[in-house]
Amino acid sequence: MNTHTVKAFGTEAPEADLKQMSIERREATAKDVEIDVLYCGVCHSDIHTARNEWPGTIYPNVPGHEIVGRITKVGSSVTKFKVGDLAAVGCMVDSCRECESCKEGLEQYCENGMTGTYNAPDKHLGIQTFGGYSERVVVDQDFVLRVPENLDLAAAAPLLCAGITTYSPLKHWNVGPGKKVGIVGIGGLGHMGVKLAKAMGAHVVVITTSASKTEDAKRLGADEVILSNDAEQMKNNAGTLHFILDCVSAQHDINAYLSLLKRDGQLTLVGAPEEPLPVAPFSLIPGRKSFSGSMIGGIAETQEMLDFCGKHNITSDIELIPIQDINNAYERMLKGDVKYRFVIDMASLKNNS
Amino acid sequence: MNTHTVKAFGTEAPEADLKQMSIERREATAKDVEIDVLYCGVCHSDIHTARNEWPGTIYPNVPGHEIVGRITKVGSSVTKFKVGDLAAVGCMVDSCRECESCKEGLEQYCENGMTGTYNAPDKHLGIQTFGGYSERVVVDQDFVLRVPENLDLAAAAPLLCAGITTYSPLKHWNVGPGKKVGIVGIGGLGHMGVKLAKAMGAHVVVITTSASKTEDAKRLGADEVILSNDAEQMKNNAGTLHFILDCVSAQHDINAYLSLLKRDGQLTLVGAPEEPLPVAPFSLIPGRKSFSGSMIGGIAETQEMLDFCGKHNITSDIELIPIQDINNAYERMLKGDVKYRFVIDMASLKNNS
Repeated sequence: MNTHTVKAFGTEAPEADLKQMSIERREATAKDVEIDVLYCGVCHSDIHTARNEWPGTIYPNVPGHEIVGRITKVGSSVTKFKVGDLAAVGCMVDSCRECESCKEGLEQYCENGMTGTYNAPDKHLGIQTFGGYSERVVVDQDFVLRVPENLDLAAAAPLLCAGITTYSPLKHWNVGPGKKVGIVGIGGLGHMGVKLAKAMGAHVVVITTSASKTEDAKRLGADEVILSNDAEQMKNNAGTLHFILDCVSAQHDINAYLSLLKRDGQLTLVGAPEEPLPVAPFSLIPGRKSFSGSMIGGIAETQEMLDFCGKHNITSDIELIPIQDINNAYERMLKGDVKYRFVIDMASLKNNS
Repeated sequence: MNTHTVKAFGTEAPEADLKQMSIERREATAKDVEIDVLYCGVCHSDIHTARNEWPGTIYPNVPGHEIVGRITKVGSSVTKFKVGDLAAVGCMVDSCRECESCKEGLEQYCENGMTGTYNAPDKHLGIQTFGGYSERVVVDQDFVLRVPENLDLAAAAPLLCAGITTYSPLKHWNVGPGKKVGIVGIGGLGHMGVKLAKAMGAHVVVITTSASKTEDAKRLGADEVILSNDAEQMKNNAGTLHFILDCVSAQHDINAYLSLLKRDGQLTLVGAPEEPLPVAPFSLIPGRKSFSGSMIGGIAETQEMLDFCGKHNITSDIELIPIQDINNAYERMLKGDVKYRFVIDMASLKNNS
């Protein structure tokens, strides 16, 4: 298979910093589009993978799965896109397309394993996939999304992971008018959860440990804020929420949040703490409550989310950085020092020799 | 309020054995029926309450909430029953009747607290309610159930708690034809779960730690048995079940069972281990799985369950005992030495001076 060399930013070992490198991309096949990457969001998964914290990283590793760009080539049988179109790629670049999940448009739950945008077996080149921290990506048109023209492109990049990861469970569990929805953890995911739940018409309640986030939560669209370390506030709000989106990736007491749910309420985890979370049986049984998880979203639903964001003019709050600052950005993310997502301006890579 | 004295069996302290005692019952008011208790099932909750293991027991305590009997008196405005009818009482004898849950027929989740059949505030007498280990009970007709005439009355008693506790979640989560349903823990609850899920038309898979239960599981109606301590069997059955009813009240590894669920599968806990169960986020997230709880069922649903059992001729597997054997029965239950429910023949109390 023909390939060409592109510039990328990646790492060669768990402890190594990310640095500029060269990788091979396939020439666009009949069903592929080639995308000039304009912006790439920085997701916490990028750090976990670069550092082999979810064991299984194959090096070199080039992270990045919040990709927005412009199409520079289309294969002979591509019908959905033309050269010059805006395009986006999220966490997946392929799946088996044959299992029950794929047939239902839930490629993220592909029973044969979806192909991640990075660090997954590349069906074309036989090596690992490389992500969006690179000049260009080449992706099957079926896994490429359209980007609404009215959105700020840099701020739209995080929609491809943080956006769909929060949109999908909110939709799946019928968040909308008349529903009182809690969002726990106001970071990259949580701040999108607030904006999306609000735009869906729900009454949005931010639950946070820090009073200093109250003002920002309200600016993002929260109708109310509950301080979770204030026992009185927690007690007064017990049994009031229909749904809670839990975006916390550190250890936390899930039982405290479950107490806020109404009967038949659902708490869905989209953050992924490393250790198991102890769940008291009596947090669930007396109100027929559920504790669940959700992972990104399917391709059709990702397009639906982008169109929804276009209609409601929703993007991420971002801090734009040159790619040369990525290692520092990782350190700041680990301290929670970003409001609320870093996005790489990929011109910084292309303009570097 | 007028009362009369009846014989009962109860306990006066956490460490004390149960023994015969006298208690007061109200005279039937306009809406009440008085029931001559023929049989009373023995539930694990009886032990927890008698021994104050769920703190809050008020002594003397008379347990028993799987009650089947015959009506001996009806109040002036009772329309649902007449003297001589068979009748049953389960875990509740009243609720607020005004909250959202009560209005939806989910009295078990009454937001103002349903009135338990024993050890709850008795709205009439101002003391604690006394359960079915007694000659007679007096209950508001709205909380009294009809018993299908074709069922063995002693074996029907456990339907009032073990039956509805398993029926309700199976119905709520749409178990039926085309669904593959796991039942974990083949005891008082679990053996009812197997019978009910089978009668609902599901493919029933019993998951057990002990190979010795295989034959009995199949006799009860299981289509398959998985040995949970056989890693190979667990692996081969990963991702195959739509629903799991978890009837285990001891500590157990919930993540092992969650691995057996298909995408969007639900594991519902009806057993109540004392300590929190650690749930790994990655047991839930990659398949959008849910871990939930469920508590008994509403009054209308309890009647539906009894009618369903009448139609399918379903009762509990029981060992009938005189009430004088209750302390020994508790000890045997704690060792799991009963197939699968003790039921007290209340003639043994009435015939005792």
